[in-house]
Amino acid sequence: MFRHSLVTMIKTPDWAKEAIFYQIFPDRFAKSSNVPKASHLEAWDAQPTPHGYKGGDLLGVVEQLDYLQNLGVTALYFNPVFQSASNHRYHTHDYFQVDPMLGGNKALRVLIDEVHKRDMKIMLDGVFNHASRGFFQFNDILENGDKSAYLDWFHVRKFPLNAYNELEAGYDAWWGLKALPKFNTDTEAVREFLWAVATHWLEFGIDGWRLDVPNEISDDSFWQEFRRRCHKINPEAYIVGEIWDDPSRWLQGDQFDAVMNYPLTRAIFGFVSHDLNDKESDKCGYRYINRLTAEGFAKALQSNLTTYHPEITQAQFNLLGSHDTPRALTLLKGDEDALRLAYLLLFTLPGAPCIYYGDELGLMGNHDPFCRQAMPWGTKSLWDYDLLDYLQDLIELRKRYKAFSRGTLSILKTQGCALAYRLEYEGQEIILAVNADKKPVQLTLKLSSGSYLEPLESMTLSTEKDLLLELEAKSARVLIRQ
Amino acid sequence: MFRHSLVTMIKTPDWAKEAIFYQIFPDRFAKSSNVPKASHLEAWDAQPTPHGYKGGDLLGVVEQLDYLQNLGVTALYFNPVFQSASNHRYHTHDYFQVDPMLGGNKALRVLIDEVHKRDMKIMLDGVFNHASRGFFQFNDILENGDKSAYLDWFHVRKFPLNAYNELEAGYDAWWGLKALPKFNTDTEAVREFLWAVATHWLEFGIDGWRLDVPNEISDDSFWQEFRRRCHKINPEAYIVGEIWDDPSRWLQGDQFDAVMNYPLTRAIFGFVSHDLNDKESDKCGYRYINRLTAEGFAKALQSNLTTYHPEITQAQFNLLGSHDTPRALTLLKGDEDALRLAYLLLFTLPGAPCIYYGDELGLMGNHDPFCRQAMPWGTKSLWDYDLLDYLQDLIELRKRYKAFSRGTLSILKTQGCALAYRLEYEGQEIILAVNADKKPVQLTLKLSSGSYLEPLESMTLSTEKDLLLELEAKSARVLIRQ
Repeated sequence: MFRHSLVTMIKTPDWAKEAIFYQIFPDRFAKSSNVPKASHLEAWDAQPTPHGYKGGDLLGVVEQLDYLQNLGVTALYFNPVFQSASNHRYHTHDYFQVDPMLGGNKALRVLIDEVHKRDMKIMLDGVFNHASRGFFQFNDILENGDKSAYLDWFHVRKFPLNAYNELEAGYDAWWGLKALPKFNTDTEAVREFLWAVATHWLEFGIDGWRLDVPNEISDDSFWQEFRRRCHKINPEAYIVGEIWDDPSRWLQGDQFDAVMNYPLTRAIFGFVSHDLNDKESDKCGYRYINRLTAEGFAKALQSNLTTYHPEITQAQFNLLGSHDTPRALTLLKGDEDALRLAYLLLFTLPGAPCIYYGDELGLMGNHDPFCRQAMPWGTKSLWDYDLLDYLQDLIELRKRYKAFSRGTLSILKTQGCALAYRLEYEGQEIILAVNADKKPVQLTLKLSSGSYLEPLESMTLSTEKDLLLELEAKSARVLIRQ
Repeated sequence: MFRHSLVTMIKTPDWAKEAIFYQIFPDRFAKSSNVPKASHLEAWDAQPTPHGYKGGDLLGVVEQLDYLQNLGVTALYFNPVFQSASNHRYHTHDYFQVDPMLGGNKALRVLIDEVHKRDMKIMLDGVFNHASRGFFQFNDILENGDKSAYLDWFHVRKFPLNAYNELEAGYDAWWGLKALPKFNTDTEAVREFLWAVATHWLEFGIDGWRLDVPNEISDDSFWQEFRRRCHKINPEAYIVGEIWDDPSRWLQGDQFDAVMNYPLTRAIFGFVSHDLNDKESDKCGYRYINRLTAEGFAKALQSNLTTYHPEITQAQFNLLGSHDTPRALTLLKGDEDALRLAYLLLFTLPGAPCIYYGDELGLMGNHDPFCRQAMPWGTKSLWDYDLLDYLQDLIELRKRYKAFSRGTLSILKTQGCALAYRLEYEGQEIILAVNADKKPVQLTLKLSSGSYLEPLESMTLSTEKDLLLELEAKSARVLIRQ
């Protein structure tokens, strides 16, 4: 449970609670002819590789804002956009420059302005725990050895450094990867530098930060001050931590508004299908995903939704996958029905749902680099238009009823792999009934008498007392009390 | 001789012809308390080392503008100021950012504005032939190997690259120094990038570029376009090449306005003293400096002053040393009289004279790193105030009579190590008589009858026909016809 003593202090941005997020991997989403390109790029439609560039850019995103808005998206989360010698741009070379291949700072200016014109929001990826070998202050150490002015910016252990060979590195790196020297965040200049990055881009106009592995800076005071400084620039700034394990430490209201809610993701997957791609899930942070009955899932749900203050719960960043996981449909071994159930859950629970680019088209892809393929703008035959329509409907539904984003959840029934729950909010009452089983199920629910709209099926039901729902295999009903 | 067919096209900036330059090595000139500093710096007054930083900055220069203006300086030439992982900053990491330790772009803004307020000019050092290992596009190749988007920015020969070990580099580097990968200036994107750097900083407000070893980009069309683009931004931009050998190719009016006139430097040293520090001169681009009698010097002078168009000759960048040479007084083995003669020649010949920071105080220092010591602001006991006064007088003199900067030179007499020459310009007539010998000399000069002012001695001479000048050892006379 959340610490009640902090209740009065806890506030998260309202816009995030209502947001429909869409995650964009900038090198792979869209390419504009208005951004000059480097000469040596991989073909857009070719299988992605760990080190190759495809040349996506931010003006390309601008050109697809109609597509995104049509889908119902209201907020964009971008994987890193700053100058970086890697296609994913987690190897930051310069925190104050948008990568030239993305169109530079000018393209981000255009993007932010266009996004805001549409009443959408934009969140960037902040990689603050490590830099790269080309990052200026680290490069100074590589070039000058123990005479460097910046020795205290990193954790230097022993000269000479071996940054580009097989010998002992001589400095601390993220997960031992020499390409990613860890910042020494005990050094005041480093703290100030990183905070300055955060506030600079908020001043520039972004609406939030997704923080890459912030637990690697295991220092509450760092993130508390980070939050204070961000809020000084924009009190509505949304701060999301990439935390794979227990997020309690970070969700007390003084550090992050939310985490990437992978525990919910895992629970959803474990519930909607028992035939998961364990080999792929095991390669990423999911590890083995426990199979859940309706009861197990209900417990996971209740834990996920009641452990933190409602301000946090409603602002959580919910997702079915990211650049760090296999694509959802791959994890579900191509089971589209299960995928629909997963999305239905995602879009009918508190917490901002996020679609990983291309997932709405039914793209499949194994763990990195394969989940990072380019959007198939040119080959629409690959698009799953039914899925796209379904997601559009879910998004519309979520927007229509605040009970989804703000409601109080109560479990009505668990029966094998079938679950029903109720969401209530300011007079709205919505019942969700989900059958994750591979066979049909009959579910008897005790409901308030009256009539209920099933918006996805465009039908109305009436009930006096008990409602007997017949649910096909892998199907669900949404019942909105009229 | 200059190519007469080009005469009409040749134009160099007038301001440069009248300028009194002062060269500043930014890490070593002055340090302001208003620029935050990295933690690991060498003591200001300690012997400089090849890799250590002392933490000079651009606001420090601003704080010393009174000093410089009092000396008579009208233009500043800065060694590189852009972000670089080296104390001399020739290893450029980012061409669009002033180094944070110098105070960043904001400090350059203040500096330029303050300099211009005083009607002074500012010239930066452009290092366009090579980058550094941390430079973004090269770093991309180090990080991504043959998948890099920027393979054609450098001369990559063989993977894997060995940038930081003893194995074969796999890429072309300046003088084989792995730290300095050579740009591939045949690549259009690289050309555009470098030209964009040049124009960006002219737009920002600088008045000229000193080009580091531009002969390493052996491509007339590159520099012709460079000049065109610079002049589009500022038709009065001054472009000086660091050319140690025959500069003819570069001084036809379509590339540079001037070169660092080391041939003149060598001639002056060879004339004013025959007891030079050959060991030190041999370490730098001077190599062995030929000893010259007055006749030899006169020939060198005439060659230096008549080979190029007068627009070029008058705009030449004349100097007695730089960051790339031992300090003048060291080369002269401490002979202050010879140093004064050298300065007298420097300040009474066409071409813009430049003082290397600290030389005006009589600082000594061997070749790099020792010639790059910090200015002894705090230990004025080290200052040679007589020399400082002398230089101040010479500068005042040069400014008073345009014959020095614009005059036509004719040799009046050579006699052993004594020389007399005349400068004439729009009615001004000035005689210089210089005895570089270690013993006194009597020099009989045929002059126009009349009276002559000796401004440095504040006396007046009259002559009917022949003037017999008695010159002490290592002394000179300036005679200004009244």
